[in-house]
Amino acid sequence: MSKVAVIMGSTSDLPVMQDAVDILRGFDIEVEMDIVSAHRTPEKLFDFGKNAHKNGFSVIIAGAGGAAHLPGMVASLSPLPVIGVPVKSSNSIDGWDSVLSILQMPGGVPVATVALNGAKNAGILAAQIIGSADKCVLDKVELYKQSLKEKVIKGAEEIKGK
Amino acid sequence: MSKVAVIMGSTSDLPVMQDAVDILRGFDIEVEMDIVSAHRTPEKLFDFGKNAHKNGFSVIIAGAGGAAHLPGMVASLSPLPVIGVPVKSSNSIDGWDSVLSILQMPGGVPVATVALNGAKNAGILAAQIIGSADKCVLDKVELYKQSLKEKVIKGAEEIKGK
Amino acid sequence: MSKVAVIMGSTSDLPVMQDAVDILRGFDIEVEMDIVSAHRTPEKLFDFGKNAHKNGFSVIIAGAGGAAHLPGMVASLSPLPVIGVPVKSSNSIDGWDSVLSILQMPGGVPVATVALNGAKNAGILAAQIIGSADKCVLDKVELYKQSLKEKVIKGAEEIKGK
Amino acid sequence: MSKVAVIMGSTSDLPVMQDAVDILRGFDIEVEMDIVSAHRTPEKLFDFGKNAHKNGFSVIIAGAGGAAHLPGMVASLSPLPVIGVPVKSSNSIDGWDSVLSILQMPGGVPVATVALNGAKNAGILAAQIIGSADKCVLDKVELYKQSLKEKVIKGAEEIKGK
Amino acid sequence: MSKVAVIMGSTSDLPVMQDAVDILRGFDIEVEMDIVSAHRTPEKLFDFGKNAHKNGFSVIIAGAGGAAHLPGMVASLSPLPVIGVPVKSSNSIDGWDSVLSILQMPGGVPVATVALNGAKNAGILAAQIIGSADKCVLDKVELYKQSLKEKVIKGAEEIKGK
Amino acid sequence: MSKVAVIMGSTSDLPVMQDAVDILRGFDIEVEMDIVSAHRTPEKLFDFGKNAHKNGFSVIIAGAGGAAHLPGMVASLSPLPVIGVPVKSSNSIDGWDSVLSILQMPGGVPVATVALNGAKNAGILAAQIIGSADKCVLDKVELYKQSLKEKVIKGAEEIKGK
Amino acid sequence: MSKVAVIMGSTSDLPVMQDAVDILRGFDIEVEMDIVSAHRTPEKLFDFGKNAHKNGFSVIIAGAGGAAHLPGMVASLSPLPVIGVPVKSSNSIDGWDSVLSILQMPGGVPVATVALNGAKNAGILAAQIIGSADKCVLDKVELYKQSLKEKVIKGAEEIKGK
Amino acid sequence: MSKVAVIMGSTSDLPVMQDAVDILRGFDIEVEMDIVSAHRTPEKLFDFGKNAHKNGFSVIIAGAGGAAHLPGMVASLSPLPVIGVPVKSSNSIDGWDSVLSILQMPGGVPVATVALNGAKNAGILAAQIIGSADKCVLDKVELYKQSLKEKVIKGAEEIKGK
Repeated sequence: MSKVAVIMGSTSDLPVMQDAVDILRGFDIEVEMDIVSAHRTPEKLFDFGKNAHKNGFSVIIAGAGGAAHLPGMVASLSPLPVIGVPVKSSNSIDGWDSVLSILQMPGGVPVATVALNGAKNAGILAAQIIGSADKCVLDKVELYKQSLKEKVIKGAEEIKGK
Repeated sequence: MSKVAVIMGSTSDLPVMQDAVDILRGFDIEVEMDIVSAHRTPEKLFDFGKNAHKNGFSVIIAGAGGAAHLPGMVASLSPLPVIGVPVKSSNSIDGWDSVLSILQMPGGVPVATVALNGAKNAGILAAQIIGSADKCVLDKVELYKQSLKEKVIKGAEEIKGK
Repeated sequence: MSKVAVIMGSTSDLPVMQDAVDILRGFDIEVEMDIVSAHRTPEKLFDFGKNAHKNGFSVIIAGAGGAAHLPGMVASLSPLPVIGVPVKSSNSIDGWDSVLSILQMPGGVPVATVALNGAKNAGILAAQIIGSADKCVLDKVELYKQSLKEKVIKGAEEIKGK
Repeated sequence: MSKVAVIMGSTSDLPVMQDAVDILRGFDIEVEMDIVSAHRTPEKLFDFGKNAHKNGFSVIIAGAGGAAHLPGMVASLSPLPVIGVPVKSSNSIDGWDSVLSILQMPGGVPVATVALNGAKNAGILAAQIIGSADKCVLDKVELYKQSLKEKVIKGAEEIKGK
Repeated sequence: MSKVAVIMGSTSDLPVMQDAVDILRGFDIEVEMDIVSAHRTPEKLFDFGKNAHKNGFSVIIAGAGGAAHLPGMVASLSPLPVIGVPVKSSNSIDGWDSVLSILQMPGGVPVATVALNGAKNAGILAAQIIGSADKCVLDKVELYKQSLKEKVIKGAEEIKGK
Repeated sequence: MSKVAVIMGSTSDLPVMQDAVDILRGFDIEVEMDIVSAHRTPEKLFDFGKNAHKNGFSVIIAGAGGAAHLPGMVASLSPLPVIGVPVKSSNSIDGWDSVLSILQMPGGVPVATVALNGAKNAGILAAQIIGSADKCVLDKVELYKQSLKEKVIKGAEEIKGK
Repeated sequence: MSKVAVIMGSTSDLPVMQDAVDILRGFDIEVEMDIVSAHRTPEKLFDFGKNAHKNGFSVIIAGAGGAAHLPGMVASLSPLPVIGVPVKSSNSIDGWDSVLSILQMPGGVPVATVALNGAKNAGILAAQIIGSADKCVLDKVELYKQSLKEKVIKGAEEIKGK
Repeated sequence: MSKVAVIMGSTSDLPVMQDAVDILRGFDIEVEMDIVSAHRTPEKLFDFGKNAHKNGFSVIIAGAGGAAHLPGMVASLSPLPVIGVPVKSSNSIDGWDSVLSILQMPGGVPVATVALNGAKNAGILAAQIIGSADKCVLDKVELYKQSLKEKVIKGAEEIKGK
């Protein structure tokens, strides 16, 4: 069965990254969380990146802020698809640093980047990646999308009276 | 066997998007290319998005420039993972419009965004997504990464004499 | 008689978009509000866009935030003039994403974009569009402009003493 | 019958603004072109703005670059809908100055802004505005949209073989 | 004797613009304040701009936010030096719109732009302009600069002990 | 009689800064040009700044690119009005660095900033500053503005036939 | 023994710059703090810059906000390595002005720029510069890095249970 | 004796990075060049970073473009001072990605960032770092600064006649 790693550069990223964990667990997908700092624990980064696919992970979600090197470095070390979440940290320049240092990877080493603070979407994307080869998960993604639709339609009904 | 769709908003995006096709064919992954304009052929967009997973596709790569709505709209219609390629088109404001209108998707509907004009990386990411459930493709991704390494090492040798 | 549709991607856009409704009602122009999410209810979007001009609307005002695809997609589906309101939503990158993904539409499919959070101006613009063929509404627009002028002149009097 | 004014701040804007004229003439809509500089001919600006609706115009298209004040000043003087075209002039800072000084109008005085150098879309938008009250023009807009669709579909056929 | 006009687009700009008035009065330079809205009171703008030099003003300070057209339009109407103060108003996009629509004036019509919300500096600059032909005011500017120096040196003494 | 100093950080700024000299000479105002580099000749900068008003200058125009410190440092040293010209030099980040490091001066030390590469406007502004106390120069500024108007009107006549 | 100067443009920069002092004292490196304003105390700036290396300093850390000229001007006056700290001051445009006016120095006069508000890193960098020739300080830097690692690993343990 | 490492992510960075080598050799400082790609040769990166100080280097200069992780990753692995050169590569978004992903390092791991494409300044900064503990190199830096001054003064003489 598929397993997703949700890693982040610092405990301060946890309030944002928790959304990825929650949505994946809602899809009954196994998740493991860890703190891996590209800049403070480079050896752990290397060890994690080199072995993630051997340790049973199918997809890696990596979140970081500022000059965010974690997603790109994990992508450099692992053959797995890596989803990057730019985190708007306290000293970030409005999030532009996080976004650009994750998105603008050189040819050969992609990171699947989602919106600023978009950890929830990172979780859904991981589910879609697993679902692309697992009909059961794909069905759950479709059900989830259906639930989004219903919520909007309910909201629309409330607004119509106004 | 897995199949990837490479769609784009206009024939003017072809010189950029061809890179995705080439790299995928290099991995022996089946690719189908098409022009689907969110703004000019919305019915085709709907038809494509609704049926891509029924038509045997595992991953969708969508490229567009300016106010680039194609990747996000396909992501809204399909349960498959959608990779978005921001294209720096002629009237784009330095590519910022393409990047932001693909990257900043709302909660619930992710697009896996790659770098500006990063179609090659979109192809590699599609291969990694397929590889996350297909050991044979994963091995090819690892071989490819190995070839990148060797190229850098060769370049390093040439520079050292200087 | 002319009727304006005011649609938005999410109920969270309502506090901004209400300004459009209020100003139009102040001009005695009929308004209908609805929630239409490009990404969560694409079928509703299609249905709305295809039929707005048949359902008696003359102008469509569409507000959305982040990667805002609603105004552009409605413009792709309808022959009516579409006014786009970029909404500065909570996870927006300072509003730039909303502005650029509404403004930078490709050749052939315009969206009449107003300022960030400029729903009030969207309402006035809709009135001006109707007024361009309806002398009675045009007169109301002129009266409204006159009232703005008087307000400034009153403010000027107060400041002069200082 | 409806008539559209296409004005611009300088003859150097003509290569961009000509697109608006061409597309409107393609819709058989009468167009008058003029140079009106907010900064060099403020009296002409005043005269034009105050009298445009009396001179038989239904819609005004105004293009300008840099600190582009023409569209906003005309909007301040006329009750008609004003469409603003940000022009990427030679000393512009990548077009951002033109875009922001047209788009970000204060409450009360809207300008319907189109994409950077988007004069063609300004023309189409003017046709849609006229079409919102003139079934015959609306039909032409729909035919035009149909022709865009066919062009994309033809492009798609050519790409498919590749 | 020299007199400075301090005008602004809206009473909401007053808290920022008051700094210009205060510093000029500190230099014993006569100041007159007024609200002149380029977009809401274009006639007043015309009248003010055309006659400022006849009404005894030597310098004009004009502050405005968003698509700030007041400084540039006054500069177009008056032969006097115009100092522009970009105001960071509530719906501004981080002040960029105000800055660029004041700074990026076309060749022929300069506006002497100061920092975002820099009304105090606008006042000092007006004093320097008057001082460039009036030795007495120039001396006051030098005294003022001396007082700035002393304040920094006092601050430095306090910090040294730490 | 009034005299204007036109200084710049490097000979590479000359093609831009020459415009300021030309327009001032067109107004019969005496100009002296010099190279003063804040970063390479700080002693010359000090000497120039401290003595400019004693050496008969009324206004200083300073142009520089990148991290442009020349205008601000001269403003710190001289009581005269200083006009800053942001120059778009070869390694500039699209001119933003030049603009912001000249414009965003702290309270107490203004620089009258003009548009990117706007040396011509710097010259006109210097003439206006002199003209604010010298009726003869003011008249020349008005004549110049009149000539701009005529040029636009001529351009308008040519375009009308099209 | 090595000594580091920590200077800043204003006492309002102290809360940010204190971090540099604290970390250096933690490495037992001597520090002297001072206020030196490029724009308000240019003579003090000259004196400080010209003599810093004669007064026993090995490294200079300079922090400033807005159009931040202090780091660059000190670098122009001193042969010592100068570390620049862009400070996000109250009227800064989101810190971009501070960053660009420190970073984008012309060829010949480098400033070692750290992140926005990154005074702590400026202190560490100063220690690394001293450490590059002083084995004892280098060892302290390595110990410090080790402590960062341990803190991350502890954080990782806490998160794992979740 | 001190030795500087000049590394870069790709041979395409060589035309920019050569400037660092040239200036250092001009100061008679030993330099070694190498290609080390954070994303393509992560093992080499690790090996280089861990051992640079043991291999006799005093300072590391690292250049990279796009999502530039090389300088920051080397800084994470080495206790030596690391100078980062943002390179404006072909697919960069105007250099912003390179600048922000090098500059905005988190607390604890500084990179001494220089201007976009500022490899020459990186070389000078490395010389200054060595010079801070080596009087002989410091003297060379002062001589170099003297030569810059003379070049400006010569340029000034040529311009004066004009």
